[in-house]
Amino acid sequence: MTAAPDQTVAPDQPAAPAQTPADVVTVGQYLARRLIELGGPHVFGLPGDFNLTLLDEMLTVPGLEWVGTTNELNAAYAADAYARTSRGVAAIVTTYGVGELSAINGIAGSFAEDVPVVQIAGMPTTTARTNGALSHHTLVDGDYDHFFRAYKEVTVAGAILRAADATRDIDRVLRAALDESKPVYLGIPMDIAASPVSSAPLRHPLRATPSDPVALDDFRRALAEAVAGAGRHPITILAGPRIHRRRAEATLERLADHAGVRVATQASAKSMLPETHPASLGIYMGQMTPSPETRAAVDGAPLVILAGTVLSDVLTGFYSMGFDVDTAVELGVSSARVGAVTFHDVRLEDSLRAVEELVSTLDRGPAGAVTPRYPYRPDQGGAPAPAPSADEQGDSPLTQHELWTIVQEWLPTDSIAIADAGTAMYGALELQMPEGTDLLAQPIWSSIGYTLPATLGTSLASERRSVLFIGDGAAQLTATELATILHRGLTPIIVLINNDGYTIERVIQSPRAVYQGITRWDWQALPAALAPGVDVVTASATTAQELRDALTAAAEAADRAVLIQAYLDPDDAPPLLAALGAIAGGGVPPKR
Amino acid sequence: MTAAPDQTVAPDQPAAPAQTPADVVTVGQYLARRLIELGGPHVFGLPGDFNLTLLDEMLTVPGLEWVGTTNELNAAYAADAYARTSRGVAAIVTTYGVGELSAINGIAGSFAEDVPVVQIAGMPTTTARTNGALSHHTLVDGDYDHFFRAYKEVTVAGAILRAADATRDIDRVLRAALDESKPVYLGIPMDIAASPVSSAPLRHPLRATPSDPVALDDFRRALAEAVAGAGRHPITILAGPRIHRRRAEATLERLADHAGVRVATQASAKSMLPETHPASLGIYMGQMTPSPETRAAVDGAPLVILAGTVLSDVLTGFYSMGFDVDTAVELGVSSARVGAVTFHDVRLEDSLRAVEELVSTLDRGPAGAVTPRYPYRPDQGGAPAPAPSADEQGDSPLTQHELWTIVQEWLPTDSIAIADAGTAMYGALELQMPEGTDLLAQPIWSSIGYTLPATLGTSLASERRSVLFIGDGAAQLTATELATILHRGLTPIIVLINNDGYTIERVIQSPRAVYQGITRWDWQALPAALAPGVDVVTASATTAQELRDALTAAAEAADRAVLIQAYLDPDDAPPLLAALGAIAGGGVPPKR
Repeated sequence: MTAAPDQTVAPDQPAAPAQTPADVVTVGQYLARRLIELGGPHVFGLPGDFNLTLLDEMLTVPGLEWVGTTNELNAAYAADAYARTSRGVAAIVTTYGVGELSAINGIAGSFAEDVPVVQIAGMPTTTARTNGALSHHTLVDGDYDHFFRAYKEVTVAGAILRAADATRDIDRVLRAALDESKPVYLGIPMDIAASPVSSAPLRHPLRATPSDPVALDDFRRALAEAVAGAGRHPITILAGPRIHRRRAEATLERLADHAGVRVATQASAKSMLPETHPASLGIYMGQMTPSPETRAAVDGAPLVILAGTVLSDVLTGFYSMGFDVDTAVELGVSSARVGAVTFHDVRLEDSLRAVEELVSTLDRGPAGAVTPRYPYRPDQGGAPAPAPSADEQGDSPLTQHELWTIVQEWLPTDSIAIADAGTAMYGALELQMPEGTDLLAQPIWSSIGYTLPATLGTSLASERRSVLFIGDGAAQLTATELATILHRGLTPIIVLINNDGYTIERVIQSPRAVYQGITRWDWQALPAALAPGVDVVTASATTAQELRDALTAAAEAADRAVLIQAYLDPDDAPPLLAALGAIAGGGVPPKR
Repeated sequence: MTAAPDQTVAPDQPAAPAQTPADVVTVGQYLARRLIELGGPHVFGLPGDFNLTLLDEMLTVPGLEWVGTTNELNAAYAADAYARTSRGVAAIVTTYGVGELSAINGIAGSFAEDVPVVQIAGMPTTTARTNGALSHHTLVDGDYDHFFRAYKEVTVAGAILRAADATRDIDRVLRAALDESKPVYLGIPMDIAASPVSSAPLRHPLRATPSDPVALDDFRRALAEAVAGAGRHPITILAGPRIHRRRAEATLERLADHAGVRVATQASAKSMLPETHPASLGIYMGQMTPSPETRAAVDGAPLVILAGTVLSDVLTGFYSMGFDVDTAVELGVSSARVGAVTFHDVRLEDSLRAVEELVSTLDRGPAGAVTPRYPYRPDQGGAPAPAPSADEQGDSPLTQHELWTIVQEWLPTDSIAIADAGTAMYGALELQMPEGTDLLAQPIWSSIGYTLPATLGTSLASERRSVLFIGDGAAQLTATELATILHRGLTPIIVLINNDGYTIERVIQSPRAVYQGITRWDWQALPAALAPGVDVVTASATTAQELRDALTAAAEAADRAVLIQAYLDPDDAPPLLAALGAIAGGGVPPKR
């Protein structure tokens, strides 16, 4: 909990019995202090007529930093990535109707991908809402709850605040975000934003609901039986993104340290266990699993422990898991299952710890060597990195294979790699991530353009350098946010895959259709237009050598943002995307 | 109705009793033919995994033209303006979840402002939806109707199509858009898009529901009594945007031609009656009415006929009408009211015609001279246009007053003026529009950034040249669409009011707050970045003379797009916006 300036009682003291003047804050201040407690200092969004008072109140709280974005969808994307990176709750503040609706796709993405983002919408006054006044930013039908109801479809909790129970509602809604790692909604009428409320609840930090100890014990016993029943085979974990969202990677790594354990990760949890870890099987995606060894190890396991997994189409190679989901152990966010039996109110962090504790008591031998294949690593089955002199003139056009091979060689440790939903993600998924570098992607929601504003979020949330891979088609959706990144002096490296449009869709269907094309931009000229006077390194690469040089220069320019345009053929796609395209088209993935 | 290539029966023949092979089209083709029938040839949107089959089918229909935009919100904005300009139904095609949700703010705007736009979302297969498969672009909770339900909040009709009744559902939904001038929703699963259906219904053009003749007669009688009861005063019409949406301006103009009639228009219907017409009172906005003469004429009328009006906050100067709404005659889209009595199923086009017919039978004298004041016209109370040598060096900074005075002098006839919701709109509202030039704005929904993609829509829908006024804060939300405008060779004039942020919000509250600022762009460099090789005229103006020169050059460069950056003080606002700010801040507008 962050001590607030007007707080006279130390946080560890019992709550004072009566309210003192120092206990009074406004609703906006209260909310800001809760957000600082639960997340980072940054709040994203845009001003609008109906949130000015709210913003004025929130910004009186020391430590809160406003990050204005170019539009609300981008604010939601940035907040999503900020929450993923800071490991807390993130928030956007938008205005009523026009603002909040613009952000709803980003919030839905946070739902699909288990990210706790708070959508805070400034609203017309309580009186206007009660009277059904025909305000601007409404549908002029007197109904002020249209957008709240729309948000109910993509959030797990919400409230339109009233003065009488504003702090209770704020805490209830924020706690739902904590409990479920999902987005929530707060509508705050203008008059409520400045209403006085007691700050007393702030003395008690919000905590997620703990596990039911009885159910947890029951789960432990059932788990032990299931593991015993599977004999002395290696214990095979398929680790999904929800481990990341529940901040339980350390438990996963401890688990992986035990003999007899193997850990495959889902594509949306890639490198959650360091991929250099001996127990790492790399990513598993059913028939789309890049490494046949990994697929065989997971599909052949007599018992698979699904830890925080999401069994969605892309993540399972279109439901082509070879193991039996029904008999598996499955650790969900707030329940755990052993075969047919579900144990309710058992939280993922506890159930995973229970697995680790159980495994620590077992006397298992080594799991046996399974080395997943990383196709862009020459020592692991991949082609050797293309040498500068691969062709005599050194001017043959850059290919996707060359791009990812060079990136594999170059990608720095302790970075945040970010990959948009097109060729970028399907290339990046086959990289072996270096120590301390993880991959941020959105393979479930898959909203193209997400990652450019996401890079604003990661860059604000972490000292690690962000390295973004994004296609030109995707980047056009959200390109304006480059302005915010550059003006703030943030220093990501952006590799812009310029291949004239939506190659991911071309792979799936009708590659020559008119809708696959986009307008051609001069991406290198864009930084100077959006951030004149900001020192940015720009480069373009049409050959392997140019790309290598540009990436080397990018790593050296640690104090500046870098934008590298990598030109690629529109029909060239990484093998994993080609596999996806074949399946989506009704076929089977090509043999690797 | 557009004849389709596979149609063997002429449209004027009776429908064939049995279905022949030539009568079979796919659902996508059927929909495309209905869209061409009801609107223009252009359809806006982006491709995505779940709409590729739909797009492939739609694009087999000759005459349909795909307009790819940089994101879905911009597609919705462009379609909204396209429908307003072409006077038909416009459509966007998006993909499921990520695409459709990105567009929802634009569709909500179409609801608020009475524009018939069809949101067409390509969806996962019927089987995936039935089984609750965990597809990407879903919330991975098995519920495929979240986004349809969200859209129910902002549309008047919708359907997720099934093969058995696809054409009936398409026709029902499109007819609702026609009837109500509101947006509608169609979700089309991938498998349904290519399903065969009968084309027979296409022989019968869709028509809006006609008025109930009995109710219309009753209304006529009540109207005649009300008008007679008001004595020999001038007949005072307050004309609103719904007349425009119902394409009834010609009736309004005929009505205005009769002696004894005065017509004020709402801000969202400015120049719907040509402002050079002798009966025009200009715009009426309650206490915010720019011209005191206009306000007195409307507020002093014993009987006001509200024709297609929307009595929203901004349009009524925050509900400060001086006339009695309850005793007025009100012509709504599908009902008409005389005092306390509502006549249902009387359509606006018919009720307005009834007013015109009644007035034509009355023997009224002239209404008496009321000349509304146009402050930027020197012959109508405004200051003389700032001469080039207004200050000796000619280098005093450009002001809002100078800007609009110069625009008033310069604005070409037969153009489409477009003004974004900030200083741009409040300046443009006080212009006297030249002959054949109307103003497209969004004073009800007021979503900043709307007008830049709207300019794509107007430019495609009309040969008239579009002249856009937009602030830098607003333009940053949707700037990427400039790429589409320029690459298509469209030739709007864009006057970018560069005043360092959200002046409209500064006028309302906390002008120095951190959230009022935006990043500074080099707008003149943007066209070359977004459309390299496209010949664009760019200019910047910091003084009156520079602006005058730039506008002159813009008018001459009729075959190219023009981008003029006009630098203005962040705190400088047109008087109408200052009035709004005063009222929003709880005060009264300054005396004019």
